Amino acid sequence: MDDYKVILSEKDIPQDWYNVAADLPFELPPPINPGTGKPLKKGDLSAIFPASLIEQEMSRDRWIGIPDPVREIYRQWRPTPLRRARQLEKFLKTKSRIYFKDESASPTGSHKTNTAVPQAYYNKKAGIKKLSTETGAGQWGAALSYACNAFGLGCRVFMVKVSFHQKPFRKSLMHIWGSEVVASPSNLTESGRKILKRDPHCQGSLGMAISEAVEEAVKDKYTNYALGSVLNHVLLHQTIIGLETKKQLKVFQEKPDYLVACVGGGSNFGGFAFPFVKDKLKNDALSIVAVEPTACPSLTRGAYGYDFGDTSRLTPLLKMFTLGHNFMPAGIHAGGLRYHGCSPLVSALHDNGLIQARSFGQLEVFKAALTFAKTEGIVPAPETSHAVKAAIDIAKRDKKGRCIVICFSGHGFLDLASYDKYLNNELKNYALPLCEIKKALKDLPKF
Amino acid sequence: MDDYKVILSEKDIPQDWYNVAADLPFELPPPINPGTGKPLKKGDLSAIFPASLIEQEMSRDRWIGIPDPVREIYRQWRPTPLRRARQLEKFLKTKSRIYFKDESASPTGSHKTNTAVPQAYYNKKAGIKKLSTETGAGQWGAALSYACNAFGLGCRVFMVKVSFHQKPFRKSLMHIWGSEVVASPSNLTESGRKILKRDPHCQGSLGMAISEAVEEAVKDKYTNYALGSVLNHVLLHQTIIGLETKKQLKVFQEKPDYLVACVGGGSNFGGFAFPFVKDKLKNDALSIVAVEPTACPSLTRGAYGYDFGDTSRLTPLLKMFTLGHNFMPAGIHAGGLRYHGCSPLVSALHDNGLIQARSFGQLEVFKAALTFAKTEGIVPAPETSHAVKAAIDIAKRDKKGRCIVICFSGHGFLDLASYDKYLNNELKNYALPLCEIKKALKDLPKF
Repeated sequence: MDDYKVILSEKDIPQDWYNVAADLPFELPPPINPGTGKPLKKGDLSAIFPASLIEQEMSRDRWIGIPDPVREIYRQWRPTPLRRARQLEKFLKTKSRIYFKDESASPTGSHKTNTAVPQAYYNKKAGIKKLSTETGAGQWGAALSYACNAFGLGCRVFMVKVSFHQKPFRKSLMHIWGSEVVASPSNLTESGRKILKRDPHCQGSLGMAISEAVEEAVKDKYTNYALGSVLNHVLLHQTIIGLETKKQLKVFQEKPDYLVACVGGGSNFGGFAFPFVKDKLKNDALSIVAVEPTACPSLTRGAYGYDFGDTSRLTPLLKMFTLGHNFMPAGIHAGGLRYHGCSPLVSALHDNGLIQARSFGQLEVFKAALTFAKTEGIVPAPETSHAVKAAIDIAKRDKKGRCIVICFSGHGFLDLASYDKYLNNELKNYALPLCEIKKALKDLPKF
Repeated sequence: MDDYKVILSEKDIPQDWYNVAADLPFELPPPINPGTGKPLKKGDLSAIFPASLIEQEMSRDRWIGIPDPVREIYRQWRPTPLRRARQLEKFLKTKSRIYFKDESASPTGSHKTNTAVPQAYYNKKAGIKKLSTETGAGQWGAALSYACNAFGLGCRVFMVKVSFHQKPFRKSLMHIWGSEVVASPSNLTESGRKILKRDPHCQGSLGMAISEAVEEAVKDKYTNYALGSVLNHVLLHQTIIGLETKKQLKVFQEKPDYLVACVGGGSNFGGFAFPFVKDKLKNDALSIVAVEPTACPSLTRGAYGYDFGDTSRLTPLLKMFTLGHNFMPAGIHAGGLRYHGCSPLVSALHDNGLIQARSFGQLEVFKAALTFAKTEGIVPAPETSHAVKAAIDIAKRDKKGRCIVICFSGHGFLDLASYDKYLNNELKNYALPLCEIKKALKDLPKF
């Protein structure tokens, strides 16, 4: 057995995704059609998603087969390594054994390709010619561009204007894979034009970009919409992370005591944790830890209720931990964690006490990231660094020699400007006053 | 057996580096001390290198053991995968089988860490406290910073001033690992001050940065100098690439017909190719192809003679293919290939007809890089893309189903600005007129 990593064979890439909804000991609150106030029907989503993905979104089947053409593309980088952080352990002088599942090994450097590839595949199969999506910092836009290129689909990415100008390099990746990248708000959509008429210098937001991407998908029958987190089918595709991790831990002859992942919309957390939920139901000693920024603390300080997924109230209502769909998080560098809500599946697990949530400010998170980079040699993405920070804290307190497993969702090669700012003392923490949370939660629709 | 990649176990990390000098059927021209005009003695280098590295530089032993602490660090990312480029093959509709040895999997994203780690180790063991080095685009500076951090050595990197300002992100990596990065020419050294007195706005060159780094090593007994290419001991450490590749090809049940790598100073090329030179001596059908830019064509258009390694004439004289130590290459984006000479070992192989050299302009190189990124999903570094271009050309002409193996020396995540320029049609080719080459070669010292 290797000391530092377990890399499985391609035949160990799972044949099926795992649907945690099949094994939950409680009912999942259904999504609601805001027009009718009734549970969403499959047809309600058919203007923007193909039937196969809507089927997965609603499914209660435990296992859902991964199509061969998807596994064929997965093979380019999967299975990803499970690495033991031996140098980090030494540095911390901890008794813990620390592992990390290295999703940074993907073509775009994050876990997002795990769902981008099947989403592109199912849309292509349904005769769709083009996908539209939104992106903030660009991780999701890059991943979907990679996947659309692989299946010969067009792709238009509405990128929040401030990131479009400030974060040029994930945009470069999207261009390399042939996508069109539009600064949002744009003149290409009605909602964009409306916003620009009100404020020609508007710098955009994720909510606005979602509105533009959805509008484009609704109005053209050959264009569909794709989302990179939050929804059930997205987290389903990501379970490949946890399924591989389980096999790899067996090779290391380990059972995890702590599973740690960062959480924004919830996709890397869910994909990593869901395959372990059955173990948690049997063994309460297992801790599944979701880590979020103090600047956007939906799980630790939000309310559990029905809310819209976007600021423009275009999406179905989802029951989730949320700060309110009008909540505008501070400009922290973990752009992927700046989302007002959290996946309904993850939220339900949290509401039922199956997972714990913690939050950290970005200064302590970057400090942990630096420790990781200096010991393990890999520079973590700012989002991923939240999980690293929590794991280091657990390891420091550990007197018993626990097994800690981190979901290492992505590398920071395209986030080095943020590291520069941290090293130059230009960053600060953002704590959220209770009054602001209360104010944001006032916008929650009543259901 | 896997279809897409062979990843060896950590116990397959070679125990020894391979010294090709032991197996060459010809004499290697010795380095010359420019002061005495006589072959260099070991003591001539002791002001800047530890005895162990000087020993390796001069050694004729076939195998040189890799120290355990070096293998311990190698384990963080080695063995690197040998991947089959199946999607590229499909796209090209070629009969060839194309493989690439993925050195981009290292912590800094290139092969440079393979020698940075042992260089830091041997210096630490010799009681050295700090290394000084130069870097252009920053690949080498980042790798040495990573290695110095791992062994608790200080590191000062003299970074060519124009790159210091234009290429901030490899500088960020160096800062993360705790190095001091100085824009060269600087006020910290005599040679720097001299240059700045003449021209306060001087943007620097690799030659100037070498002078500053060497000066600093000479004047302080606890500071040594480290070089990222050209020298025998550097290429020795890189043979770990070729040794692993040989084992992996056996698992794929392949014998290579073509081995293709880019060449600047020669370190990834040499490290990849040397372990196959004995096969070449037995089987002339094996083609070992070195690929360089038309803007800096030392092997294809340079002269084979003794020359200095730097513009300031501080180094020993090395017999190599060179364009003359005063040659200033055009500002192509493959910064790692902008070196006037080529490693003495690689040069001797070329002079003896054991390898072939080809050159390409950067437009055709970026076009090939885009094809690779679109099929294999990995964005290659501009340097690496030279090898990709040559391999694609070979595969396109192949009627017989050859086995082509590329040394994939690094990824392009930190070179995306160059891709932007290519996609925006802002790049051009640089062909070198014969008169310029003749002019540059006039400066060759006579030996």
